[in-house]
Amino acid sequence: MAEWKNLDELDSFKELLKLRDEVVLKEVMAGDNGAKRVKEYAVEMGGGLCFNYASRVCDEKILDALQALSDEAGLIEKYRLLLDGEMINTGEKRLVLHQLTRGQLGKVVEKDGADKREFYKTQQERIAEFAKKVHSGEIANEKGEKFTTVVQIGIGGSDLGPRAMYLALENWAKKNNCFKMEARFISNVDPDDASAVLDGIDVVHSLFILVSKSGTTLETLTNQTFVMDALKKAGLDGSRHMIAVTSETSPIAHSSDYLDAFFMDDYIGGRYSSTSAVGGAVLSLAFGPEVFAEFLEGAHEEDEKALSSDIRKNADLLDALLGVFERNVLDMSSTAVLPYSQALSRFPAHLQQLDMESNGKSVNRFGEPVNYKTGPVIFGEPGTNGQHSFYQLLHQGTDIIPLQFVGFLDSQMENDVVIEGSTSQKKLAANVTAQIMAFACGKDDDDRNKYFEGNRPSSLIIGKKLEPKALGALLAHFENKVMFQGFTWNLNSFDQEGVQLGKKLAKKVLAHETDGALKAYADLFEI
Amino acid sequence: MAEWKNLDELDSFKELLKLRDEVVLKEVMAGDNGAKRVKEYAVEMGGGLCFNYASRVCDEKILDALQALSDEAGLIEKYRLLLDGEMINTGEKRLVLHQLTRGQLGKVVEKDGADKREFYKTQQERIAEFAKKVHSGEIANEKGEKFTTVVQIGIGGSDLGPRAMYLALENWAKKNNCFKMEARFISNVDPDDASAVLDGIDVVHSLFILVSKSGTTLETLTNQTFVMDALKKAGLDGSRHMIAVTSETSPIAHSSDYLDAFFMDDYIGGRYSSTSAVGGAVLSLAFGPEVFAEFLEGAHEEDEKALSSDIRKNADLLDALLGVFERNVLDMSSTAVLPYSQALSRFPAHLQQLDMESNGKSVNRFGEPVNYKTGPVIFGEPGTNGQHSFYQLLHQGTDIIPLQFVGFLDSQMENDVVIEGSTSQKKLAANVTAQIMAFACGKDDDDRNKYFEGNRPSSLIIGKKLEPKALGALLAHFENKVMFQGFTWNLNSFDQEGVQLGKKLAKKVLAHETDGALKAYADLFEI
Repeated sequence: MAEWKNLDELDSFKELLKLRDEVVLKEVMAGDNGAKRVKEYAVEMGGGLCFNYASRVCDEKILDALQALSDEAGLIEKYRLLLDGEMINTGEKRLVLHQLTRGQLGKVVEKDGADKREFYKTQQERIAEFAKKVHSGEIANEKGEKFTTVVQIGIGGSDLGPRAMYLALENWAKKNNCFKMEARFISNVDPDDASAVLDGIDVVHSLFILVSKSGTTLETLTNQTFVMDALKKAGLDGSRHMIAVTSETSPIAHSSDYLDAFFMDDYIGGRYSSTSAVGGAVLSLAFGPEVFAEFLEGAHEEDEKALSSDIRKNADLLDALLGVFERNVLDMSSTAVLPYSQALSRFPAHLQQLDMESNGKSVNRFGEPVNYKTGPVIFGEPGTNGQHSFYQLLHQGTDIIPLQFVGFLDSQMENDVVIEGSTSQKKLAANVTAQIMAFACGKDDDDRNKYFEGNRPSSLIIGKKLEPKALGALLAHFENKVMFQGFTWNLNSFDQEGVQLGKKLAKKVLAHETDGALKAYADLFEI
Repeated sequence: MAEWKNLDELDSFKELLKLRDEVVLKEVMAGDNGAKRVKEYAVEMGGGLCFNYASRVCDEKILDALQALSDEAGLIEKYRLLLDGEMINTGEKRLVLHQLTRGQLGKVVEKDGADKREFYKTQQERIAEFAKKVHSGEIANEKGEKFTTVVQIGIGGSDLGPRAMYLALENWAKKNNCFKMEARFISNVDPDDASAVLDGIDVVHSLFILVSKSGTTLETLTNQTFVMDALKKAGLDGSRHMIAVTSETSPIAHSSDYLDAFFMDDYIGGRYSSTSAVGGAVLSLAFGPEVFAEFLEGAHEEDEKALSSDIRKNADLLDALLGVFERNVLDMSSTAVLPYSQALSRFPAHLQQLDMESNGKSVNRFGEPVNYKTGPVIFGEPGTNGQHSFYQLLHQGTDIIPLQFVGFLDSQMENDVVIEGSTSQKKLAANVTAQIMAFACGKDDDDRNKYFEGNRPSSLIIGKKLEPKALGALLAHFENKVMFQGFTWNLNSFDQEGVQLGKKLAKKVLAHETDGALKAYADLFEI
């Protein structure tokens, strides 16, 4: 039986606290020992990726202590409970089933009168069939012309994850002859967002996807009306140009306003929905259902690897625990995600939501305040761009910020140029390796302005090329990492009560039911 | 004579430390007092903007203490020295003249045998003339056809600022009939970046701008070769399609490889270069020189307002000092920038560079280690998107993160839709006001999961519409804020030694001059 205890109630955590000064990174990463660490501190992941943690703050003693923490906190046991369909989201009293969208790893989960794995698979198949008809032209616009563009209307998890995944595979798909339709995204309630997207596309040949689990998200419905108006102005029948992705019980699930509807359910949190119908519809339309299936396969491989109770063989669990060590023992308050791949330009923004919305909490899963730090700030930009920007602070600032690098041996488009004896792709890779070592070991200099303290921890996820399977594994890695950290901090990582108050107050402002400072602010905006 | 002292040597800072518990934000923002603060705690900025700091942690006592700090540290005096052409960038032994690109506020600055204001104005005029010829078709491609697209090749400050400014005005320009040419940007050394941009444009009608102050930036020269190869493959003469923005002494300043060259100099740091030729060329080509001139005018207005020694009348100075209070007295380690305008989607990324590269330092301007925290982590995304993402942590996480909101009364494209009785623009504004109050005052709830502690400080920069002048003022506000914070922390905000080590090691990797862990990492990438 899993025990849900706060981190500071665990004996193994008290042991861990004693290891604060155990490792001086620039010492262990120097010389032959550093080379040995790079070779040995590596774990195989799904999708052909590898997690290298040589430059994280750890040694055998710390790893043993983290293993003890994992065991005492029952992290793998809790993951199994989640997979078996226990009500892990205690706040909203919901199961947590996003892993089930990509494969079955636990017991059969029966809920709402259905085998949930079958439910998700059925939706995936329905989407595949729909996408094929769109690609073949069987489903077309009123004039019988093929749709060429797909536009996702959604916000938060219905936007960031699918958008990041689309951008990650767009160029790969073009290179590999599986680019079917261009995708665009409308998310912001700022009317200029929808206007700009609509101005930039050919609406006559555009298919829109309205994504809202509840069917009541104000921003999304507002943007839907915006789009419907534009379609009407262009003399088009909106219901021939729009599909819905929603829950079966939502008001938009069975409406003649849509060409078709595909379903998710309450057990898929928005930020975990890229592998459900929310990501499935847009990615299958853009790249074909086979590519989406490969993406799911990579995620499933990673989910399976996350079952190992040996932290040295489980990259997701290990990354999570090293993060807890950095946050709660070494007292570091943010983490940067630095993919050396332009295709991952919005991946950090997705992880920002995934992580901060899941674990940015001050109460445990029983609603009791915790006495320790939880989720860090997550930010990042692709390298090498970041190097010419905020890396200054990462290298020489007064706070130490742990770093998560991602890099690949090959580019996606295989179009390269040799300058000064090396390709751009090699330069990119040379920069990752150089940065990791500069952060870890620093540099002595009598001129203190040119002195680098070092001791800045980082890890590296490395792969051959960013392809659908690798991307799936990469996504699942971070989802599982966040889950394991949530378990460790004894949080409910699957609700988001913190976003409610603002919504409520915004409604009051629009209804002019305000006083005091709220009214004064509303006056500034002439509301 | 200005004295350059560390922050912790100032008596006024010691006084400030005593005010740590002076203000409980949720108390002062409640009821009529809150409304009074919103009305009174506001400072007029340039470009028609207003800085409202009602929800920052302050009261008259704290403001008086910050005024004393400003006076004792001589912040305005130091700003005047900078304007007058003193060597403020002590590390690189350079003047700091970006304010001079938009107007003269101090003495005439004579350097390198020239009146520097005249130099910058001349470049601006040369660019204006060039842009007009491109727009009229007098300067055209080999076939005499007009250029329709401009592509900036640059990295770091030559990319982020100009790109953010372009995106900020793109839709406004389209709406206001001053959209002349589409702009695109190539920055990353990742070959997929350049490939994707080149695939998406019509190279025959594209004009490229190579931006590199030194003329030796490896990423930029690599991407230039990439582009030149593509032009050659298309049967085009590269020198007819490319201009350079560089310093007069660089190897590319007077080369027949370019159609023309426009100049900046060593006194304009990359991250401060949006108002120099670096931003001037691309923005003048995209929107016309008149729009660029208005943008400069807004920035100049803000620079002028930043001269006031009364912190209650100087938004840039006040914002800086409130930030120092949050960082060094209230111990907050990051700051989020949250523009409620989709057009400002990349503005936070620009500020991230501006702030973190300027003040992410551990030594003072004399190269001595400081004993206090300096620049925070800066991150952000446009609202309302962020609300559906990382705001959870901002509201209920264990760390308090100060927030900088930006909002406008009107949209740029003036295309809107009424849903549930309000336009999207009103909804956007209602959300800003609601969020500010939710962060400041929180909400009691017996269910601790739905409890909001409040006391999360924020400020609001508000304007009528995001137009060129407002954008200029907004940019200058943050540049000046960073400058004043740098003075307060006694840093040199204008060099970036922290980016050098990585560059050096990357060269070693490419030359195979590695051993130990660096070699082991390089082996992983098969370099």
